[in-house]
Amino acid sequence: MQQYRILIDSHDEKGLVYKVSSIFYNYDLNILSNNEFVDKVNNKFFMRSVVTGNIDPKALNSDLSKALPNDADIKIIAPGKKNIILMVTKESHAVGDILIRYEAGELDANILAVVSNYALLEPLVKKFDIPFHTVSHEGLDRVEHEEKVMEFIDSFDHLDYIVLAKYMRILTPAFVEAYDEKIINIHHSFLPAFIGANPYKQAFERGVKIIGATAHFVNNNLDEGPIIAQDVKHIDHAYSWQDMQRSGRDVEKIVLSRALKLALEDRIFVHMNKTVIF
Amino acid sequence: MQQYRILIDSHDEKGLVYKVSSIFYNYDLNILSNNEFVDKVNNKFFMRSVVTGNIDPKALNSDLSKALPNDADIKIIAPGKKNIILMVTKESHAVGDILIRYEAGELDANILAVVSNYALLEPLVKKFDIPFHTVSHEGLDRVEHEEKVMEFIDSFDHLDYIVLAKYMRILTPAFVEAYDEKIINIHHSFLPAFIGANPYKQAFERGVKIIGATAHFVNNNLDEGPIIAQDVKHIDHAYSWQDMQRSGRDVEKIVLSRALKLALEDRIFVHMNKTVIF
Amino acid sequence: MQQYRILIDSHDEKGLVYKVSSIFYNYDLNILSNNEFVDKVNNKFFMRSVVTGNIDPKALNSDLSKALPNDADIKIIAPGKKNIILMVTKESHAVGDILIRYEAGELDANILAVVSNYALLEPLVKKFDIPFHTVSHEGLDRVEHEEKVMEFIDSFDHLDYIVLAKYMRILTPAFVEAYDEKIINIHHSFLPAFIGANPYKQAFERGVKIIGATAHFVNNNLDEGPIIAQDVKHIDHAYSWQDMQRSGRDVEKIVLSRALKLALEDRIFVHMNKTVIF
Amino acid sequence: MQQYRILIDSHDEKGLVYKVSSIFYNYDLNILSNNEFVDKVNNKFFMRSVVTGNIDPKALNSDLSKALPNDADIKIIAPGKKNIILMVTKESHAVGDILIRYEAGELDANILAVVSNYALLEPLVKKFDIPFHTVSHEGLDRVEHEEKVMEFIDSFDHLDYIVLAKYMRILTPAFVEAYDEKIINIHHSFLPAFIGANPYKQAFERGVKIIGATAHFVNNNLDEGPIIAQDVKHIDHAYSWQDMQRSGRDVEKIVLSRALKLALEDRIFVHMNKTVIF
Repeated sequence: MQQYRILIDSHDEKGLVYKVSSIFYNYDLNILSNNEFVDKVNNKFFMRSVVTGNIDPKALNSDLSKALPNDADIKIIAPGKKNIILMVTKESHAVGDILIRYEAGELDANILAVVSNYALLEPLVKKFDIPFHTVSHEGLDRVEHEEKVMEFIDSFDHLDYIVLAKYMRILTPAFVEAYDEKIINIHHSFLPAFIGANPYKQAFERGVKIIGATAHFVNNNLDEGPIIAQDVKHIDHAYSWQDMQRSGRDVEKIVLSRALKLALEDRIFVHMNKTVIF
Repeated sequence: MQQYRILIDSHDEKGLVYKVSSIFYNYDLNILSNNEFVDKVNNKFFMRSVVTGNIDPKALNSDLSKALPNDADIKIIAPGKKNIILMVTKESHAVGDILIRYEAGELDANILAVVSNYALLEPLVKKFDIPFHTVSHEGLDRVEHEEKVMEFIDSFDHLDYIVLAKYMRILTPAFVEAYDEKIINIHHSFLPAFIGANPYKQAFERGVKIIGATAHFVNNNLDEGPIIAQDVKHIDHAYSWQDMQRSGRDVEKIVLSRALKLALEDRIFVHMNKTVIF
Repeated sequence: MQQYRILIDSHDEKGLVYKVSSIFYNYDLNILSNNEFVDKVNNKFFMRSVVTGNIDPKALNSDLSKALPNDADIKIIAPGKKNIILMVTKESHAVGDILIRYEAGELDANILAVVSNYALLEPLVKKFDIPFHTVSHEGLDRVEHEEKVMEFIDSFDHLDYIVLAKYMRILTPAFVEAYDEKIINIHHSFLPAFIGANPYKQAFERGVKIIGATAHFVNNNLDEGPIIAQDVKHIDHAYSWQDMQRSGRDVEKIVLSRALKLALEDRIFVHMNKTVIF
Repeated sequence: MQQYRILIDSHDEKGLVYKVSSIFYNYDLNILSNNEFVDKVNNKFFMRSVVTGNIDPKALNSDLSKALPNDADIKIIAPGKKNIILMVTKESHAVGDILIRYEAGELDANILAVVSNYALLEPLVKKFDIPFHTVSHEGLDRVEHEEKVMEFIDSFDHLDYIVLAKYMRILTPAFVEAYDEKIINIHHSFLPAFIGANPYKQAFERGVKIIGATAHFVNNNLDEGPIIAQDVKHIDHAYSWQDMQRSGRDVEKIVLSRALKLALEDRIFVHMNKTVIF
């Protein structure tokens, strides 16, 4: 018996759960979990089922397609390792958290490589027998630099996600479009507060009593992509911005790893600029 | 078009979602929300749907009963005000929080009365034009006292929930059995830590760095009933047990009101000693 | 033996704690608690001591003034009820939370009156025997309306704080300047995210996974005054903006009441656009 | 100018801050931060100052000793790397979190070695060039096993802390006494809830809505030592105990690392069964 994750989204109309569940019943599927959500503002239906059964996924997909609205997006996914590439700059906490989980077998992923604009984290990454690829940005403009990064990334056959584990450069539109809904970033603030550079300094200047971190898909508007996960931490007046930064790293790494796990488990739907997460 | 909340629980077997959704489809119901959960340890299926339609609830219940397993428990509830009685002792924060929500029309409930073993909170409750009934425990043993309380409670035609809004006496088994799964209590600790009397003193003695509160249904084992909601608050060494108590009241009242709201919206299933909450 | 709260801030220099504590020692004061903080960025020293003793506060103030830098701000406060005025519009949760605490004797304050631009909450406030004063804004421009509000406020001899308990109008600079560092507002977002109108709608549009509330002193820049307290609550995609609003009210009222309590206990220093809170 | 952390605790009496600060003043010390706390229940005074100056620490200690009560405990510590040993069993998340921080230079510590009763984590630890020492418990009783562990630990000249980073065996009284107030443990529950084995299974059985972790010093009563840090995480009915365990690991590792950081920065006082943390 094989397990499958079945993800469906379409415009909403009466009878969708009935139509899907009757097909599941006909295929003699065993339903392990079932989640549905209707976005009433946009009249959208989202459903994620985890099932087991002896089926032909193509036939199931075809039958679901016939029964569901024309705009339905149907994914039938056999769980397995997804291919990911990490991008980093100089800080090790986020990539380190992923590496420890990876080593423990906690992530259903192959880390194809870690890419950076500095060589600083190469020794750490190499400990885990993962290729580290430095593409220095020195002497290159943004487009030239990213072309070299993309050349490296595209040298791999199949890629599911790019994880920006504190990659501290703003990506060009060409890069973002090339990997649409595949790039997960961790921003070191509770978005939409403190967009842009140095959010901890901004937070310090503003005198906030809470700091946070936000994992989101990257789109072309800086720090404005669909939010996957957020968390926060109480602070007080005694925190310098460096204290906020040190303390905030714990939030950043946990939030990023949680978002990555949700992506690897196919739990995230993106619609317009938001996520539905089961 | 009338709205209904349909709650189903039964042992789990293949095709339950299909069977329910096909009946919903035949009744031309519009599904506003749908939640299912399978408790794999106990092989139990839980489902809560909010639907609108022009239907005969009895006929729907009958059709669901025929289609579902014999042990299925089916509730079809037209949303409306539930009848509740509050029980208090001397502290006003929990009952006060409920009264302010009640006055604002936030609670889908009629507060039939507030019952207490002291008259202290009568002036507060009377401000809101709610009957306040004192049953002093002085000179009475526990059973005698509760018989008088029960006599008062049972003078009302229909009762949905008894909310112990800081009622500081332990209930007898007779009382608890008389209102099975109808009594919601707020315990001023993060259960199962600090069961019993003076949890803040216990917490102070233990030197915890977090305090909490737990709303739960009451059963015959003190502070051991099914948990509905919990929340916590960070503290430090500078808190006396009185500071913990003062500060903890904010958690207590919010957690109790949240649990009451879940109950009034028919979102809670109780199975064995646990809750499933949609 | 009388209790005093002694608050000192000045520029920082060597020996300040020594100078203060030696004077305390000479006055034979018993120190109940002592908090100091040095803001290294701005070279500022803050100290709050709670002491008991038989002293002449004026003499103590004079001795402290002589010993401390010229720019030192010294307050010697005998704890007691502060006079506050609440301002509201239509929502009752924040003012209701304060009223219940007031009735329980939890707040060291006299509520002189509640002022509103609508009469809607008059019945609630009157229950607690507190004057309710409606100043309708209809037919008045902002300045005219606030002049009438100020006329009422200034009819009281002594005022310590104005608490905007969901007062939904933007104040004019004249009003803000008239009550500098005396106006405490609750903003229904985690500032600086979602400044301005309808923050829950903004939060819904942005698809955040956490909502929050911020209590702050009001200055002339909208929602930019010194932050006193903040808290947040996790939400998910199933929350409509109305759900966020309902759920956010619990955070708003607790954060505002906490900020008010800090103010009533003289625990807040304001420096530039930030607070130091002991 | 050398930095020092000065920690003082004694019974409380009038003038302690004055006496200490006058000596600091005479030594021309620059005070970077100053924290005091009086435990009124036990009449105990705690003070931690971070200072810079050109001083003879022995002379300062001597002067403080003369001025302070006879029972005063005075520590003058020049910040620097502390020597620590980690003990682990099979799970890598807690030790991994420490290793990544260590590699980043975030911890003011030398990790002398990692000791385990299994060899499983040797490859991970070896990546970081830290000695891994396996002392199998097979065929040994508890006392014999720990004698071998202690023999290894005591082969190092100087040891500040032993960190039980998910060491899953109960220590004997002899071991605990040998390293009094030096052993920091992470317990995978919100103590005092779910003492003992399998706390996540216990939490699952109880149906809690929050799970947590507790870092504490180890004393001879199982899971009853002074608590250093705690944190929690909301869960719901859909969590199996394995889900709780997976999810709880994020809380465990962050709480343990936070406690370790507090210890390395000399921020923790232990008195009776509690901690005072500045």
